Amino acid sequence: MPEGQESVVWLNGALLAARLARIDPSDRGLTLGDGIFETIRVRNAVPRQVRHHLARLRRGAEQLGIQIPLTDADISAAFNQTLAANGLVDAVLRLTLTRGTGPRGVAPPANVTPTMLITAAAWVEPPSQITAMICQTTRRNEFSPLSGLKSLNYLDNILACREARQRGADDAILLNTQGNAAEATAANLFVLKGGKWFTPAVRDGALPGIFRARALAVDAAREATLGPGDLLAAEALCFGNALAVRSVSRLDGNEIRANPAEVAELRAILETED
Amino acid sequence: MPEGQESVVWLNGALLAARLARIDPSDRGLTLGDGIFETIRVRNAVPRQVRHHLARLRRGAEQLGIQIPLTDADISAAFNQTLAANGLVDAVLRLTLTRGTGPRGVAPPANVTPTMLITAAAWVEPPSQITAMICQTTRRNEFSPLSGLKSLNYLDNILACREARQRGADDAILLNTQGNAAEATAANLFVLKGGKWFTPAVRDGALPGIFRARALAVDAAREATLGPGDLLAAEALCFGNALAVRSVSRLDGNEIRANPAEVAELRAILETED
Repeated sequence: MPEGQESVVWLNGALLAARLARIDPSDRGLTLGDGIFETIRVRNAVPRQVRHHLARLRRGAEQLGIQIPLTDADISAAFNQTLAANGLVDAVLRLTLTRGTGPRGVAPPANVTPTMLITAAAWVEPPSQITAMICQTTRRNEFSPLSGLKSLNYLDNILACREARQRGADDAILLNTQGNAAEATAANLFVLKGGKWFTPAVRDGALPGIFRARALAVDAAREATLGPGDLLAAEALCFGNALAVRSVSRLDGNEIRANPAEVAELRAILETED
Repeated sequence: MPEGQESVVWLNGALLAARLARIDPSDRGLTLGDGIFETIRVRNAVPRQVRHHLARLRRGAEQLGIQIPLTDADISAAFNQTLAANGLVDAVLRLTLTRGTGPRGVAPPANVTPTMLITAAAWVEPPSQITAMICQTTRRNEFSPLSGLKSLNYLDNILACREARQRGADDAILLNTQGNAAEATAANLFVLKGGKWFTPAVRDGALPGIFRARALAVDAAREATLGPGDLLAAEALCFGNALAVRSVSRLDGNEIRANPAEVAELRAILETED
């Protein structure tokens, strides 16, 4: 939000100052990670790819058995209210949906009202080039349906990110339990090989990202199983998500070839919308 | 808490009515599952195995790089204050520790104050016998250090629990990615075989549970790799955690042998403390 302006969030239908917004200590989003989220790029006050973000949100909610209390139009209106209340034009929206509050225990309660939270942050252009490493600490679980959901369970990714920072890299790539590449800590992977972009398959533990789906839809990339050797031999390597496409200059200390023209083409897909 | 009494929680050093306790919407425990917890049995106003619970909490916090702001004595005092404020004598305490609030993004912020929350619930005796199924929906990731931590990332276990309820069972057993038994959704497994209790190894994705550690320490159980066949052929099968030992009467619809004497011996370990 503009300097001096107090941050405002949308919580269960109400706009209120962030410092007054209260998540209940018994919210299962907090106690058990029982929820999902979406992160949405906003340009010129227009949230991008909303239809796709909300479709993924609904798929996730259905898989978890969480009822979404609002229509897509209601959610879009809430996005716009949140942006306006924060005076934001270029921004990132985050929608968090949890199952709601509950007594102790893993079993989802029968009658529960979901918690829906929308927050907005001013847009900060991420660096277009980064260094990366292949995470040694943990692996992404391609056997879990959670690898296909943008769930609140991000601790494996946090461990990977911490490891990267400790080893002097900007970000990390998670392998799956078989040792194939799955994704970065908050982005999908794009590997240039023979002049074509490839991205790890959902069956290999890749989150079905919104930018990734767009790149597949316009035939700019295709799915493949990719090992660490494929990454190191890449003609270019990018991390892409709904916010940005960042190219990787070094992986585990090894220089990765740059291919500015192909990277620019991939990045240009961010500007398109169907 | 006794009927009519308002529930009280301990939050970052203050006791306050649960309905007034506020978790910040930017708490990373909520937004990313960035935290850990402990669940502690209280009998006759005495929290049990506190030393072991706090040792595990500190191991987890160290692995995640979260600073715990209190000594063990401070935390014990907070437990007692929380119990007294709720008028509870037989209870379950839960301590939740998150990394604290942060801006958007996976990377842990540099300067962050952890959130520590203690809640208490009246003791409700769980059923001593249950039915179970082997989860088909998801697998426990033994490749992740999180399988050794009591982290806030419980969504795989929630999926397993939901599947159990949908299929008419009380609870579920999670296999690891290799297809060996890891644990139940909120308890360790104990399999009687040749008159001895065996429990899945930590390397197979078993949470190093406090009751489990006690059973190993008194030589009542030993670690083993156990497949679904071992579970079905068990001379008795139990789910054990710091709160209770429950015996399984049916697994995937198949009757599991009862062995009341051996189960009683295992359950008796709950009463002991070193």
